[in-house]
Amino acid sequence: MGSEVTTLYMIYSHDVELDGHIVDSGIMEHVLDTILDMGGDFEILTFDIGKLKTDTSYAKIKVLTDDAEKLERITSQLHRRGARLVDIDDAILKPASADKVVPHGFYSTTNYSTEVRVRGEWHEVPNIEMDCLIMVRPETKTIQCLPISHLKAGDLVVIGEQGVQVRPPERARESGIFEFMGGQVSSERPTRTTIRKIAEEMCEVQRRGGKIALVGGPAIIHTGASDDLAGMIRDGHINLLFAGNALATHDIEYSLFGTSLGMDLKTGQLISAGHKHHLYAISEIIRAGSIREAVEKGILTSGIMYECVKHNVPYVLAGSIRDDGPLPDVITDSVAAQDAMRAYVPGIDMVLMVATMLHSVAVGNCLPARVRTICVDINPSTVTKLMDRGTMQATGVVSDAGTFIPMLAEELSQLRRSTG
Amino acid sequence: MGSEVTTLYMIYSHDVELDGHIVDSGIMEHVLDTILDMGGDFEILTFDIGKLKTDTSYAKIKVLTDDAEKLERITSQLHRRGARLVDIDDAILKPASADKVVPHGFYSTTNYSTEVRVRGEWHEVPNIEMDCLIMVRPETKTIQCLPISHLKAGDLVVIGEQGVQVRPPERARESGIFEFMGGQVSSERPTRTTIRKIAEEMCEVQRRGGKIALVGGPAIIHTGASDDLAGMIRDGHINLLFAGNALATHDIEYSLFGTSLGMDLKTGQLISAGHKHHLYAISEIIRAGSIREAVEKGILTSGIMYECVKHNVPYVLAGSIRDDGPLPDVITDSVAAQDAMRAYVPGIDMVLMVATMLHSVAVGNCLPARVRTICVDINPSTVTKLMDRGTMQATGVVSDAGTFIPMLAEELSQLRRSTG
Amino acid sequence: MGSEVTTLYMIYSHDVELDGHIVDSGIMEHVLDTILDMGGDFEILTFDIGKLKTDTSYAKIKVLTDDAEKLERITSQLHRRGARLVDIDDAILKPASADKVVPHGFYSTTNYSTEVRVRGEWHEVPNIEMDCLIMVRPETKTIQCLPISHLKAGDLVVIGEQGVQVRPPERARESGIFEFMGGQVSSERPTRTTIRKIAEEMCEVQRRGGKIALVGGPAIIHTGASDDLAGMIRDGHINLLFAGNALATHDIEYSLFGTSLGMDLKTGQLISAGHKHHLYAISEIIRAGSIREAVEKGILTSGIMYECVKHNVPYVLAGSIRDDGPLPDVITDSVAAQDAMRAYVPGIDMVLMVATMLHSVAVGNCLPARVRTICVDINPSTVTKLMDRGTMQATGVVSDAGTFIPMLAEELSQLRRSTG
Amino acid sequence: MGSEVTTLYMIYSHDVELDGHIVDSGIMEHVLDTILDMGGDFEILTFDIGKLKTDTSYAKIKVLTDDAEKLERITSQLHRRGARLVDIDDAILKPASADKVVPHGFYSTTNYSTEVRVRGEWHEVPNIEMDCLIMVRPETKTIQCLPISHLKAGDLVVIGEQGVQVRPPERARESGIFEFMGGQVSSERPTRTTIRKIAEEMCEVQRRGGKIALVGGPAIIHTGASDDLAGMIRDGHINLLFAGNALATHDIEYSLFGTSLGMDLKTGQLISAGHKHHLYAISEIIRAGSIREAVEKGILTSGIMYECVKHNVPYVLAGSIRDDGPLPDVITDSVAAQDAMRAYVPGIDMVLMVATMLHSVAVGNCLPARVRTICVDINPSTVTKLMDRGTMQATGVVSDAGTFIPMLAEELSQLRRSTG
Repeated sequence: MGSEVTTLYMIYSHDVELDGHIVDSGIMEHVLDTILDMGGDFEILTFDIGKLKTDTSYAKIKVLTDDAEKLERITSQLHRRGARLVDIDDAILKPASADKVVPHGFYSTTNYSTEVRVRGEWHEVPNIEMDCLIMVRPETKTIQCLPISHLKAGDLVVIGEQGVQVRPPERARESGIFEFMGGQVSSERPTRTTIRKIAEEMCEVQRRGGKIALVGGPAIIHTGASDDLAGMIRDGHINLLFAGNALATHDIEYSLFGTSLGMDLKTGQLISAGHKHHLYAISEIIRAGSIREAVEKGILTSGIMYECVKHNVPYVLAGSIRDDGPLPDVITDSVAAQDAMRAYVPGIDMVLMVATMLHSVAVGNCLPARVRTICVDINPSTVTKLMDRGTMQATGVVSDAGTFIPMLAEELSQLRRSTG
Repeated sequence: MGSEVTTLYMIYSHDVELDGHIVDSGIMEHVLDTILDMGGDFEILTFDIGKLKTDTSYAKIKVLTDDAEKLERITSQLHRRGARLVDIDDAILKPASADKVVPHGFYSTTNYSTEVRVRGEWHEVPNIEMDCLIMVRPETKTIQCLPISHLKAGDLVVIGEQGVQVRPPERARESGIFEFMGGQVSSERPTRTTIRKIAEEMCEVQRRGGKIALVGGPAIIHTGASDDLAGMIRDGHINLLFAGNALATHDIEYSLFGTSLGMDLKTGQLISAGHKHHLYAISEIIRAGSIREAVEKGILTSGIMYECVKHNVPYVLAGSIRDDGPLPDVITDSVAAQDAMRAYVPGIDMVLMVATMLHSVAVGNCLPARVRTICVDINPSTVTKLMDRGTMQATGVVSDAGTFIPMLAEELSQLRRSTG
Repeated sequence: MGSEVTTLYMIYSHDVELDGHIVDSGIMEHVLDTILDMGGDFEILTFDIGKLKTDTSYAKIKVLTDDAEKLERITSQLHRRGARLVDIDDAILKPASADKVVPHGFYSTTNYSTEVRVRGEWHEVPNIEMDCLIMVRPETKTIQCLPISHLKAGDLVVIGEQGVQVRPPERARESGIFEFMGGQVSSERPTRTTIRKIAEEMCEVQRRGGKIALVGGPAIIHTGASDDLAGMIRDGHINLLFAGNALATHDIEYSLFGTSLGMDLKTGQLISAGHKHHLYAISEIIRAGSIREAVEKGILTSGIMYECVKHNVPYVLAGSIRDDGPLPDVITDSVAAQDAMRAYVPGIDMVLMVATMLHSVAVGNCLPARVRTICVDINPSTVTKLMDRGTMQATGVVSDAGTFIPMLAEELSQLRRSTG
Repeated sequence: MGSEVTTLYMIYSHDVELDGHIVDSGIMEHVLDTILDMGGDFEILTFDIGKLKTDTSYAKIKVLTDDAEKLERITSQLHRRGARLVDIDDAILKPASADKVVPHGFYSTTNYSTEVRVRGEWHEVPNIEMDCLIMVRPETKTIQCLPISHLKAGDLVVIGEQGVQVRPPERARESGIFEFMGGQVSSERPTRTTIRKIAEEMCEVQRRGGKIALVGGPAIIHTGASDDLAGMIRDGHINLLFAGNALATHDIEYSLFGTSLGMDLKTGQLISAGHKHHLYAISEIIRAGSIREAVEKGILTSGIMYECVKHNVPYVLAGSIRDDGPLPDVITDSVAAQDAMRAYVPGIDMVLMVATMLHSVAVGNCLPARVRTICVDINPSTVTKLMDRGTMQATGVVSDAGTFIPMLAEELSQLRRSTG
């Protein structure tokens, strides 16, 4: 097919600009790919490539299509890859007609660092999160990233990509664990080496003043990793806990009775009447008023939840429809539980997701792309699913909580000894 | 080890009785096993075996232990397998000291058919469900099966096994699909044969006036099985739907835009701006007020939810912390959502669980053992986990919703044609 | 349905006998179940139940059918569950008409302990193995269990069940790890407790003079567990190794280059030109002549294969169509490799199967039911599949070789220290 | 870190050239990435970007390192990504010192199209395959791609990258199924749409004169998909079959007895004595001499193997250590079986891999990167593993053979009708 013929029908065009490390971080490739895959064509108007590693590059590209709507679709897509539309203007704003009703053409956020142009000035969108709207109050220059559930009638919402600029993270060049494992899921990696690197990265994050959250499922207790996780909390390696009723209930069951779902974790035997233990555990906490009160009254004297209370590690326990009880600390309303998690997200720098898909997806949905994520599950599909959810800096480990956490705890205490 | 020596220390004893098809349904074996596994011993006092297939057997067994507490633990376990303690008395009742606080020694239910002895008479416990308490009002002879969340201060609760009789289902002798596949999970079965048998069983259940519930996840939409499931609802094969926000949202997205999570289901292409479709879908329903109102206003004109509304198939949509939106029909409080499901459970005779672990576990927790359950998931671990949750009549199918549902729909319409 | 009517058509009958712990090990239940499931009926003629735990029971059962062929099918099935046909005669023998061609009606073995009646005397079948034939030389009273590939023209083969007696293992009563985990696969067990119990059982088996085989896949090397396994061999915990070309090749690659498939196991980095390491490793061994010669010439100085050579632990390396090379020690003919494995099977008391389905299935096929089997894999389906293959004493562990083996090695060395 | 300081230590350098669609197919990005990841630095000397879609680009890049060996490692890696070392000379050749012993520094092949420079001229390496050596006979200008097992003493082997040029496939621009699904594995795709696209692509490949191979496991028979696959062979959709003893044995078992591993595929019931059927099936074929003779003698009259014989579709059956029998057609030596497969590879344009990891990996190892590959398995990890093995044009489908093959057969027959 000759390019003349092609050009003949390609009469709609729009220029876009790219800059930064656009060649070696693959952005240039994605942009050209996207144009062609979506049925458009391109002409490269300017291309100044950085000669050296530290130099940035600049490209100006004319996007051509045979159809105005296609042009808009393509430029919208390019925008999400970090391309700037030339001839920039302020973001377009439109009010929501009712609570939780989005205006047509609303801008749906990525989890990349994002700026909006309001009255001629660029403003960073704080607490950026995927699949949200950007709400602007032009007078006060307030910008918010709102989930649909928070949208109120009359809120001014950004429409289309005009006046919005997205900055995908450029790949870090240091060879951290992310480089080593980045973007790959496999059960055929040197596990101890991987765990050591995760431990080193945790220490490094906290040395820089960063905070680490753990998102965990009840398999941590069932597989006997409870004491090790409690120790990690006691030693300050975890700054925040996201979980559900099950993790907390079985942790408390283990502390009160030595069992998890009625199985004695020291012997592996099912204890008679053990099937009632988790209901007793819930009931004891209800009687005490809350987990904190149970700790203060000396009822709960060990375990993950105990260490959280003792060391002021905040926790969010989110309810789910399969819960027994639940514990009084569990937030049973799912929208409220999401908001409770969301309130802690801005302070987080690293997340360990261990053996829970439900809570990990929920937390992952609220995370900006910059947060370092480690996903650990025995099921490779779960790990892959978690890593596909938009975080740029995720490492997947296919392993058993019952061996992963003890080995991580050991590496952490070796590091503490060697640097302490 | 001589039996004399053994007997010497075995001074605590309790007689238990068993009757029914106790040999060929394995109950006798389980009872003797349990005694030995738990460190007790036994003497068989009477054993009248049924000579013919239709005869029942009767056994009276003396349980011996060296320790009073062990004896109690063993008899408690035997009780759960259907053994009767000889010298029966009324159930012991004790009041709850506060809301949601269980009295010590409370009786925790199985999901088998259960009777309680109150003032000399046996009463069936209605709506029996696993891991609950039995509440009794002796004056009115009211018996209720209560989850811990429903327990009120002062409620009289059954303590221990005295005066409680459990009847495990005896295995049916007809060769249905349960005999064919019962208790096994494998991806190496003749899939079409399995699906045909499920279709036949569904027709048979409804012919007898039974009701069929579907518990489904969003993969039904993503894998393109939506039209087939909608057809099954239209044709009356499904009487009840349990799902979450995601299934309903993507069903509505598909109806309004032809996409699921932005992928065009007819072409498999990601549609530009398609990532906004599910938020538009939610927003449209919020604007209309509810799914029903969207159908009535002509906004929603096809799909699973549309057919439910049109054919008066009730649905319960339970919220979870990973939801976007959610839709106004979603019950966001997990305890309220559980109760909404629970309200429908007594009428159900068969459940299809397709591609959702969260909702399937939640529903499974509320089901009595008599309900026929079919678990379908691409992940064999999910299928195994669902089948382990206490239902006696579960069949697992490791398959893809996107091929399972179309083939089931086809088998159902062939059956309808051939019998119509 | 009245029993008279039934009886009318049930005119074919055969008496069978059972003895042993037939109630508490479930054999009685299976026998009655089988009769009914296969469309027969029964009458219990005699039933002497053992009153005490140590007593055995005896039952004589009349099997009734409406069809002579069905009667034969049912009694054949009962035979495989350990029932004896009353009025026993010698086994019927028929010659094979050609090499590897089975005579019609041949008796296909179980992996249970089996005896054959030849000229009025019962003889144990040595080296019993599933899905084989029993070959008899009546003059010399030689009995052999033959795979079809070993059958020669003219060999006398047992036909039907007459004169064959099978003894399913009765369940052991001690509470070993088998009782604790037996027959179950789950990733939600206390892993460290499980591993400790496996270590204890390994020590116990060897204390009794038993031998332990390891069947392993290359993931042992890839996950960095190589040094720990080499240590276990050095310390005498493994008496036999079954593996393929890949395990040995990557073990040697790791010993020579520190890499596995080109990844440096200490740093987790891919080494440049590392993709050639496994071919160099193979080539070095070819140059040396064999693994043993490479050890003797000082070329191979560490690792799993090195320790096997040094400590006279025999190994069988079986070829497969995906092999590179292969190493000169690999038996490339699959029938020859099977026979090489088979030669070692009679001496084995316990098998650890780690991270290889192909070799584990191959070994499992040759094992008699008495051998204790531990199956470890990251994939629950693989574990389930291995445990379904007829061994009565299998324990499944869903875990990562890279964490399982180091933790097992540690437990073993603690046990050695505490008992040493 | 300032670039001056960097440059100071970077004193080893080598220029490399790239041309083609190097920006939009990501080659440029990979090259710069590789240099930095491996600790080198670069300077871009020339960069002529193609202005229009149809234009190619050209880049000349100076690679800088602080260490001569590192420079060699980097350029070797760049070579594998398609970079040409400037100042090209003939390939260096070195003889093998013994059979199967590789000379040090040998060039290990990729599966991309590859040329070698011999006496000043470039020659394409025929039948390129991964992880092999290139053998050259300069006098006759013979070039061969040799697996290590075929290397003979004295063979001249290419050493290092000098005089070798690799051409990674540039991504095709048409929107085929590869674009739609390429490089992704998910169980959440519209399955019917995916299957339709695969059917269309199969027809398209054959319309262009291409050949399609099927690599299949016995689950195809166990899941009841046998008739549909036999139909596809009869209708000419499959040109070649790679499998093992199990697929052929159970196919023949099904044809002779209606069972697979003793289960009646029409009813799903286990047939009594059915466990002997596969041994009878093997025995019948042994008696006949071979599968072909069994067909010719009228013993085998239906099924997959029957249709292969009838329609002259060649098959390679490779032995494995877990085989019963095996059938006389099975090649039991793994090296011979590999060579038999390899002989057919050059003619193949598309491969369907269904429900067998072992054979799929074996075939995948021999395929050049240009061959279109479809991997179907119920286990997502298997699909991912197969797709990671170097083919550039692989599509993964997580589905059940028992539903995938019938739906594919149906789509194919619809296409045949509509175009016929």
